[in-house]
Amino acid sequence: MRIGFIGLGTMGEPMAARLLDAGHAVTVHNRTRAREEPLAARGAGRAATPREAARAAEVLCTMVSDTPDVEAVLFGEDGAAAGLEPGAVVLEMSTIGPEAVRSMHARLAEQHVSLLDAPVSGGSEGAQQGTLSIMVGGEEAALERVRPLLEVLGKTVTYVGPSGAGQVAKAMNQVIVAGTYAAVAEGLALGLAAGIDVEAAHRAVSGGAAGSWGLTNRGPNMLRNTYPLGFRVRLHRKDLGIALDTAAALGVPLPVAAYVAQLETGLIKRGFGDEDVSAIARVVREQAGLES
Amino acid sequence: MRIGFIGLGTMGEPMAARLLDAGHAVTVHNRTRAREEPLAARGAGRAATPREAARAAEVLCTMVSDTPDVEAVLFGEDGAAAGLEPGAVVLEMSTIGPEAVRSMHARLAEQHVSLLDAPVSGGSEGAQQGTLSIMVGGEEAALERVRPLLEVLGKTVTYVGPSGAGQVAKAMNQVIVAGTYAAVAEGLALGLAAGIDVEAAHRAVSGGAAGSWGLTNRGPNMLRNTYPLGFRVRLHRKDLGIALDTAAALGVPLPVAAYVAQLETGLIKRGFGDEDVSAIARVVREQAGLES
Repeated sequence: MRIGFIGLGTMGEPMAARLLDAGHAVTVHNRTRAREEPLAARGAGRAATPREAARAAEVLCTMVSDTPDVEAVLFGEDGAAAGLEPGAVVLEMSTIGPEAVRSMHARLAEQHVSLLDAPVSGGSEGAQQGTLSIMVGGEEAALERVRPLLEVLGKTVTYVGPSGAGQVAKAMNQVIVAGTYAAVAEGLALGLAAGIDVEAAHRAVSGGAAGSWGLTNRGPNMLRNTYPLGFRVRLHRKDLGIALDTAAALGVPLPVAAYVAQLETGLIKRGFGDEDVSAIARVVREQAGLES
Repeated sequence: MRIGFIGLGTMGEPMAARLLDAGHAVTVHNRTRAREEPLAARGAGRAATPREAARAAEVLCTMVSDTPDVEAVLFGEDGAAAGLEPGAVVLEMSTIGPEAVRSMHARLAEQHVSLLDAPVSGGSEGAQQGTLSIMVGGEEAALERVRPLLEVLGKTVTYVGPSGAGQVAKAMNQVIVAGTYAAVAEGLALGLAAGIDVEAAHRAVSGGAAGSWGLTNRGPNMLRNTYPLGFRVRLHRKDLGIALDTAAALGVPLPVAAYVAQLETGLIKRGFGDEDVSAIARVVREQAGLES
């Protein structure tokens, strides 16, 4: 397929590379143009603007940082919307708010372009290995057309409902990550403070009802009080902000997620925003008076 | 081995049965004596008092409800301590406070009896199938003597430190369960309120960083708003109380666990104490105005 791909960060670059390697005709664009070069060396076309990247594309993928970036890429000066032809599909894979997605979806529908929100989880490792989990909202017919592309990028592609639903599912993911990691951090802090063999206790509780991906994969780092990436605190905080705004608009109180967001706000202020999100254990440990 | 076993509730009864089936000479005692009968029919001896159950026992297991029950069984009128011979080992498998355990350990040490705290996780199903996770505190030499018994009861037996450490590990387990379940409940409530295909979203997020035993095994019940056992809210609340008291004595704040304990307090008052602990989702859903 003819694919335009906008946004070549730590997620977008390996995703675009996978699409190229799968034999698609990919034209890339990135705000910092130099990031296009490695992909161009592998056969990608380069576009000077989002509009040019969209021209003649059957599918336009966007993988940028936040709602204003997606707005600018699609509807700003030389934005992609001006280049898209009727019948094209926009695969919006950034994590942004469901309301913003629905608004973009409606604007593009006027020019007979279908926008799917398809945020991902699985991190840069998942992007490189094609093992992302992709949650899709929008028209099912549009999803079926782009499914072969998504299967190059992810190991699971899940349709979760109309426009915006993919972003809600991503918000659910980040809310659950927040509370689960906080739970792990609290449990481990208790063991550390009590002076028991906490590595042994970690093993003992990992296999039962307390078990989680976070306990198994982030617990050991929490015990060492080191937080290599992973997924950055500042990005998780951005995503939690979207989740909490979405929840507030729906009248859904999320006290645990809101609490974790506060911990993350403090971590970012103190310079820990580029650590892994499991760094919330840093604060939980500090609150317990454990040496840092 | 000659084993005394005190406390034949939903956990103790199948545990004593497994020890019998493994060929040990087991003498049982239960406050409500009629509960001894099925085990007696399978070959167990019956003791009229804890003291009698302890007489000639190489190992005395206790599996009762709470600290006062253990106190009464060991040191009350006709208590087991009066029947234990020097060299015996007490396997205290109830979930009680680490401080209480250390005090009992010291009292029994005076008569050359070694007490191991060996609380379990895995529920009645784990007790029946011998797949409990057993966390052990106390003298390692005593553990090595009783390890063959523990391996009849559990699939993992983990030594976590001196007297009381097993109870700390159990407290860690219950703290992590509390926050993990709350995280799952919050995430699912968001999806339900947004009206997306939340079963599909549940599948999509279960395999990644949001994944947990609770999400996989209790999430579907939370979506249905039905909470079959499992592990009772009232027992988890008791265990969280121990964990929070232990943490407070150590100066460790556990805000997420404390919040969940409050939810459970309300559930018990309203008659939901015998539901599974995943019923904390009942409150999270209600707070979001979701129909019950």
